[in-house]
Amino acid sequence: MLSNKHIITSKKKPIGIIGGMGPYATLDFLNKIAISAKAAHDQQHVPFLLYSNPETPDRTSALLHGGASPLPLMVEGVTWLNSFELACVAIPCNTAHCWFKELQLLSDNTILHIAQVLCKSLIHKKCKSVAILSTSATSSQRIYESHINSYDIDIDNICNIEVNDIVETSIHLIKRGMIQEAQSLLLPLIDNLLSFGVEYIILGCTELPIALCGFGFPFNEKLLDPTLALAEECVRISCNTAMANIVQPA
Amino acid sequence: MLSNKHIITSKKKPIGIIGGMGPYATLDFLNKIAISAKAAHDQQHVPFLLYSNPETPDRTSALLHGGASPLPLMVEGVTWLNSFELACVAIPCNTAHCWFKELQLLSDNTILHIAQVLCKSLIHKKCKSVAILSTSATSSQRIYESHINSYDIDIDNICNIEVNDIVETSIHLIKRGMIQEAQSLLLPLIDNLLSFGVEYIILGCTELPIALCGFGFPFNEKLLDPTLALAEECVRISCNTAMANIVQPA
Repeated sequence: MLSNKHIITSKKKPIGIIGGMGPYATLDFLNKIAISAKAAHDQQHVPFLLYSNPETPDRTSALLHGGASPLPLMVEGVTWLNSFELACVAIPCNTAHCWFKELQLLSDNTILHIAQVLCKSLIHKKCKSVAILSTSATSSQRIYESHINSYDIDIDNICNIEVNDIVETSIHLIKRGMIQEAQSLLLPLIDNLLSFGVEYIILGCTELPIALCGFGFPFNEKLLDPTLALAEECVRISCNTAMANIVQPA
Repeated sequence: MLSNKHIITSKKKPIGIIGGMGPYATLDFLNKIAISAKAAHDQQHVPFLLYSNPETPDRTSALLHGGASPLPLMVEGVTWLNSFELACVAIPCNTAHCWFKELQLLSDNTILHIAQVLCKSLIHKKCKSVAILSTSATSSQRIYESHINSYDIDIDNICNIEVNDIVETSIHLIKRGMIQEAQSLLLPLIDNLLSFGVEYIILGCTELPIALCGFGFPFNEKLLDPTLALAEECVRISCNTAMANIVQPA
């Protein structure tokens, strides 16, 4: 069957990315894609096409405070990516996944669901219970719960006004590039949660790993980073397409 | 006149980027775009479309060692970006600018020339003389010299086999993510050049600022970062399009 898709000239099929929500979270995702490629030179890295529109209306504001919907601009990204044959599409913003079904319906390419991808890590770690730090919107829409509930994993309910305030304030600080200020708020919270016996903590907003991962904190192995899980899965899928090209009959 | 260009829904016209040469240099460029936006929240950041194809053949290899040409894949990027109304196009790879003329001829959007943009900084700093660190290919094609020669600025000739070896080895280390190892090679070189009275040093390969800028080294003000200059110019142009939208008559 003939296709009118644009083909990018590369052995590995490119990843499609709908980004800019927020910009530093997208950068963190791209950095994790680069690291996950374990490349010795440029050509071993993974190609991608990125629609980065930070003017996309705030997701939490749309869901909880009657703000403008981010859906039209995310649809713009999906529609544009439909012109290409891609390995997969990723959206490095947890709250954006509240519109996952609408976007997948309009997408010709498979969109990876960040929470579904993270669940693989939970099983791999033989995790029994998790707590979730996220925006109030991600929490209210049960983005993670709806996936975790398929497995025999307990969810520690840590939601209260104080926790939500710390998380939301930290996210806004990170969006402004104020990483150390966000760390000062988040570190005591993480300490506190772990001292109450929480086994693992899902960093369920793509801003949070920016302040918490890669700094060598002693509790790092207790933190689950969905951005990293999503990047690793994208790289795995893209590299598999290159393998498939190689084993095709002549 | 009607146009069949895709319009991205954003107040600021998006930047087009041809990236992946190499991936960490592109990330450094995107980080500098984010910082330059001085944004208090997501929506104040600058939208962009990025074609990142790290499988683009090595530029130096093509120019000096008979390797495959990177031009067809860069043309693929330019052609794709032609579908959009953009503020400008940037290519965060100095050596790629050896094909600048061919790319600009095929591009409907204005491509910013990294060396031309950097020259503005030289004038702003009232610079009298510069040395240039770059790949052998950028050096052999006189990418910077051809622009600097229009001004009353001397170019310190620091090219010798030893300097070239250090720079090329460092670039390859940075492409592998080995930043500290590259720093160990580059710092004595920079020290040495400055002790010989070089006034400013242009980091004329987009990998070099990754290892040398933003770490608080005492000689930082002596280093000129073309990646930062290019990012700032892109942000300035994109934000001006938003201003233009505001002042348009109703």
